[in-house]
Amino acid sequence: MSFHFRLLATDGRARAGLLTTPHGDVPTPVFMPVGTQATVKAVSPRDLEDLGATIILSNTYHLYLRPGDGRIVRLGGLHAFMGWSGPILTDSGGYQVFSLAQRRKVDADGVTFRSHIDGSKHRFTPEKVIGIQENLGADIITCLDECADPLDYEYNVQALARTHAWAERCRAAKTRPDQALFGIVQGGVFPDLRERSARFLTDLGFDGYAIGGLSIGETKEQMHRVLELLDPLLPADRPRYLMGVGTPGDLVECVARGVDMFDCVLPTRMARNGGALTRAGRINLRNARFADDPVPLEPGCTCYACTHFSRAYLRHLTLANEILGHHLLTLHNLHLMLTVAREIRAAILEGRFQSYREAFWRQATDTVGPLRQPGGDAGCTLPSTGL
Amino acid sequence: MSFHFRLLATDGRARAGLLTTPHGDVPTPVFMPVGTQATVKAVSPRDLEDLGATIILSNTYHLYLRPGDGRIVRLGGLHAFMGWSGPILTDSGGYQVFSLAQRRKVDADGVTFRSHIDGSKHRFTPEKVIGIQENLGADIITCLDECADPLDYEYNVQALARTHAWAERCRAAKTRPDQALFGIVQGGVFPDLRERSARFLTDLGFDGYAIGGLSIGETKEQMHRVLELLDPLLPADRPRYLMGVGTPGDLVECVARGVDMFDCVLPTRMARNGGALTRAGRINLRNARFADDPVPLEPGCTCYACTHFSRAYLRHLTLANEILGHHLLTLHNLHLMLTVAREIRAAILEGRFQSYREAFWRQATDTVGPLRQPGGDAGCTLPSTGL
Repeated sequence: MSFHFRLLATDGRARAGLLTTPHGDVPTPVFMPVGTQATVKAVSPRDLEDLGATIILSNTYHLYLRPGDGRIVRLGGLHAFMGWSGPILTDSGGYQVFSLAQRRKVDADGVTFRSHIDGSKHRFTPEKVIGIQENLGADIITCLDECADPLDYEYNVQALARTHAWAERCRAAKTRPDQALFGIVQGGVFPDLRERSARFLTDLGFDGYAIGGLSIGETKEQMHRVLELLDPLLPADRPRYLMGVGTPGDLVECVARGVDMFDCVLPTRMARNGGALTRAGRINLRNARFADDPVPLEPGCTCYACTHFSRAYLRHLTLANEILGHHLLTLHNLHLMLTVAREIRAAILEGRFQSYREAFWRQATDTVGPLRQPGGDAGCTLPSTGL
Repeated sequence: MSFHFRLLATDGRARAGLLTTPHGDVPTPVFMPVGTQATVKAVSPRDLEDLGATIILSNTYHLYLRPGDGRIVRLGGLHAFMGWSGPILTDSGGYQVFSLAQRRKVDADGVTFRSHIDGSKHRFTPEKVIGIQENLGADIITCLDECADPLDYEYNVQALARTHAWAERCRAAKTRPDQALFGIVQGGVFPDLRERSARFLTDLGFDGYAIGGLSIGETKEQMHRVLELLDPLLPADRPRYLMGVGTPGDLVECVARGVDMFDCVLPTRMARNGGALTRAGRINLRNARFADDPVPLEPGCTCYACTHFSRAYLRHLTLANEILGHHLLTLHNLHLMLTVAREIRAAILEGRFQSYREAFWRQATDTVGPLRQPGGDAGCTLPSTGL
């Protein structure tokens, strides 16, 4: 089999591993930049390579609607189409479809929805989304799931039944031997549902396990409790992917609770709004105090933006809505996420994760900023894959 | 003196030279990418270096309004501010101010106008725009001129009187020895006015001569006649800069009439609208015929966009309004302009410009496209420096 996960070291609950995929190896923990529409917004594939990105995420819902998975398969598959030769993970489109709210209708067999682009009517079933993802050809594909309000117990009971039935059907529908299939654990913030979901999906058996339905309304403490509950329930020899999370601090705190893989639109979306992530907290370049600030976004950072441009210049680009501003802030934010993931991995491999974690939070609280103590990080509350 | 122009070779009226500036040498003929707001839109300084750009243009009007020339001088000048270490030319802001139409009022002493950003009231005089340009610190600065409708004789007579008086005042106001000052020849399409302007400005004596007021409504034939008239009137040992022109074909045809320097927003602006320049003609990626087209924008082109991506992918990015699409098309269009300028120069130095010119137009007319025979190129009609 072309997909393989090797657990190389643990340090507490934190894990360092190596994912092997048909398009290359992925050292974990890893942050996956989000390439919603077959591009990570505002950067090129060569930028991603320079940044050391090893795997990116793309969105089944968006690519199905535009340019269409049939077109992508004719053009050689998603890797060739977008010029990214490394590993790709595609989500199932479930999250986007359930985000459509008034424009979708779920039944036991699947979900019918209207396109956010032109209002046209479409239907996703488990078999359909596996077929789309087989056309796209990502290295890792995911089961269609129903993403429920994490705080609504009754809804989660019903959604979980569908999610589990669909996971079985996705597993049966999959035909490509060169793609790994991840199940998605749901159940909101409810321990009994999360446990039920973990047991059901691990009994079925998947190449990896995504943890869905978090970072969309619950508190950090609730999210962390779910991760702590799931850690011993999920098989140690399979990767765990926390969907839609988060910030540098989220990486530290969720790796500490057994997570291997992350994605979030926050670093790239913030960038296009003039926001920069730093280890000490967030910076909003629209703030007038940066108008004459000659220092880099994050002094000491080795990214292209920080080694060549001042905050004053980046603020100017932001206010003038210049594409270069979006580009440079995206480079910086992704560089930080990818660097923190690499640092975490090195710390785990060297058995010093706990001291790394403590140093990380000391730095974060040394200066005024919205980042807070472990468990209180004002993390990624944006969905990873929103429309 | 830190500024110097050496004429290396002529071939017919075509000239190859070398500009020496405090920030580096500029082989001519040259195309200058336009960095209106202290950034060439959608590309970074390192992209420009990779493309082989040797000099860029930036806009006095825009930088004066935002972020302000006082701020730029505090931050080390325009080169440091925008992270471009090569030569820069700034226009005088005249073109932009006169484009404001109802929002400006000209008198003998200067022009009063309202900002397009916030409606605030400002005044440019010759002394003021030299002061701003000295703050910005470009290698080449330009005189405040009044840009008139090129077909309106009476208006050109009046505007030319002001332009000439202002040129004298700009020359007197200039204090920095490390900046070259270009006069701007005006006079519309009218031979007597153009001749008067060329004689007046060359009598005053400038480091170079810009040719303004063209490519804004007259025909290509009218523009070419003005260039043919000016060629013997302008000193051979000073560079000539045709403002706001143009396409690859314009470079060929205007070099053939004695021009050394060009700038135009067309390549970068077209790119952000899904348009690509090719030697054979223009491509609009919004056209459905590119939906499944697996070939590069311009087969054989060595730019990053053409060596890594298909027309189908670039069309997808354009329709999805993805920043990467703007970036890749900008790279391609600038690459073509800069490559054609380099090819023209090599042909002049080797005494084969006329055969290059003929081969250029054979290629352009080999395929269907809007490019036409010499004299009929559907060239840059967009202003180089519009708001």
